[in-house]
Amino acid sequence: MQSTSINPDMQQCIDECLHCYRVCTQTAMNQCLEMGGPHVEPTHFRLMRNCAEICRTAADFMLSSSPLHAQICGACAVVCDACAESCEQIGGMDECVQACHSCAQSCQKMASGQGGDLSQTRAGMPTNMQDQLPM
Amino acid sequence: MQSTSINPDMQQCIDECLHCYRVCTQTAMNQCLEMGGPHVEPTHFRLMRNCAEICRTAADFMLSSSPLHAQICGACAVVCDACAESCEQIGGMDECVQACHSCAQSCQKMASGQGGDLSQTRAGMPTNMQDQLPM
Amino acid sequence: MQSTSINPDMQQCIDECLHCYRVCTQTAMNQCLEMGGPHVEPTHFRLMRNCAEICRTAADFMLSSSPLHAQICGACAVVCDACAESCEQIGGMDECVQACHSCAQSCQKMASGQGGDLSQTRAGMPTNMQDQLPM
Amino acid sequence: MQSTSINPDMQQCIDECLHCYRVCTQTAMNQCLEMGGPHVEPTHFRLMRNCAEICRTAADFMLSSSPLHAQICGACAVVCDACAESCEQIGGMDECVQACHSCAQSCQKMASGQGGDLSQTRAGMPTNMQDQLPM
Repeated sequence: MQSTSINPDMQQCIDECLHCYRVCTQTAMNQCLEMGGPHVEPTHFRLMRNCAEICRTAADFMLSSSPLHAQICGACAVVCDACAESCEQIGGMDECVQACHSCAQSCQKMASGQGGDLSQTRAGMPTNMQDQLPM
Repeated sequence: MQSTSINPDMQQCIDECLHCYRVCTQTAMNQCLEMGGPHVEPTHFRLMRNCAEICRTAADFMLSSSPLHAQICGACAVVCDACAESCEQIGGMDECVQACHSCAQSCQKMASGQGGDLSQTRAGMPTNMQDQLPM
Repeated sequence: MQSTSINPDMQQCIDECLHCYRVCTQTAMNQCLEMGGPHVEPTHFRLMRNCAEICRTAADFMLSSSPLHAQICGACAVVCDACAESCEQIGGMDECVQACHSCAQSCQKMASGQGGDLSQTRAGMPTNMQDQLPM
Repeated sequence: MQSTSINPDMQQCIDECLHCYRVCTQTAMNQCLEMGGPHVEPTHFRLMRNCAEICRTAADFMLSSSPLHAQICGACAVVCDACAESCEQIGGMDECVQACHSCAQSCQKMASGQGGDLSQTRAGMPTNMQDQLPM
């Protein structure tokens, strides 16, 4: 069976999303819970969890060659940026800040149509769905 | 422990998302696989799976009182609409069409800020995240 | 398209799993985070999250008519029981205790082969997988 | 913030689970759907999807330092083995077979208590949960 047609830019974004999922989950469920205080403040902790969840979902869309991955990657970029900022405000969370920033940039590229080659998927979509893809 | 502050409109949208997740998953993994033909055509089957995945994630954001739920609900509405259309084109998938349409409408309300009361969450967010919320 | 062949006992277990996922997620991400103290103690909070995660996965296996759902339901029952006990020790978490207990019982039935009709799936499985199914 | 206490064996199992999730999802949603025939036969395709789902969940338990990760890893090993065998029977799916076999072995180690250091988590668990941990 030949290898799939997911291009290198999209493979890199999948890498970033799964890495960010992993760092956010591991950090939230270990350091944050064990350190307590501002680390379990609701707004911060929710962002950590939300970020992990949407990163996992964005990776799933790209792994499935979803023609609507740009929608999810756009939402993922917003959540990652918010999580990075929240981690910066608390301090001492450099790995998480870096993972979120890097994932946000990669997802933003996908959302703007720079990364994924959508020409093939566009052709196979219902007409009115094509309007929802970035030009 | 008193009940949470998730308002009735958001609770209904959570209901819709979990119902749509359930119908899309059950239909894809049973009828679609067993009937074959157009039901396992890649574009259609991917939409069924993608729709299930984003519905589950949108429900998770709302259950977490995420201040960024509007972003995810907006993306979810787009995917649900696309899935509904794909199911309509194939025909004989009325339950799925209905679940997707209903979920898309409910998510669209959340995305536009009509459903969820964001006043509380807005106040607790970092300043630049507030710009990302619908006014 | 006719309705799927998932039997009533399994449909009820899917209901229980999605309900328990919902209650655990909503409680953890709202009351637990807002009340703090013992509610965000690592062992307890991890169980709340783990329980939500495995309940969601168990539902997904059953919705997919997976011939290996008994394995996952068995693991889910153990996690639900542990989460129920942890919630009882903390106190004031009656809704969560009830959801976990009820889900554990339903999953235990599935795990022991009382609920799901596996006769059909057994026939379609590779020979050595059949050994892994409950008799 | 210092790095978490997840030991190297468990980190490797997390790697294996996320890799297996990725390979199974990408293969199912691309090659299987595009090639059709035996690749979308219900029993095979369900195993591909189920394997992806439980691998993702097993990784999540280990990333959360769940004291009940052995339960989930045990179930994951069974599903991975079944998926590997199904892929071997179809043929031409070497990457998937290898990922599933490797993940099954790693998860089996975790399930038998050889990999994760449970001494700490055991101490922090309710008494009757300790009985559910491997000795």
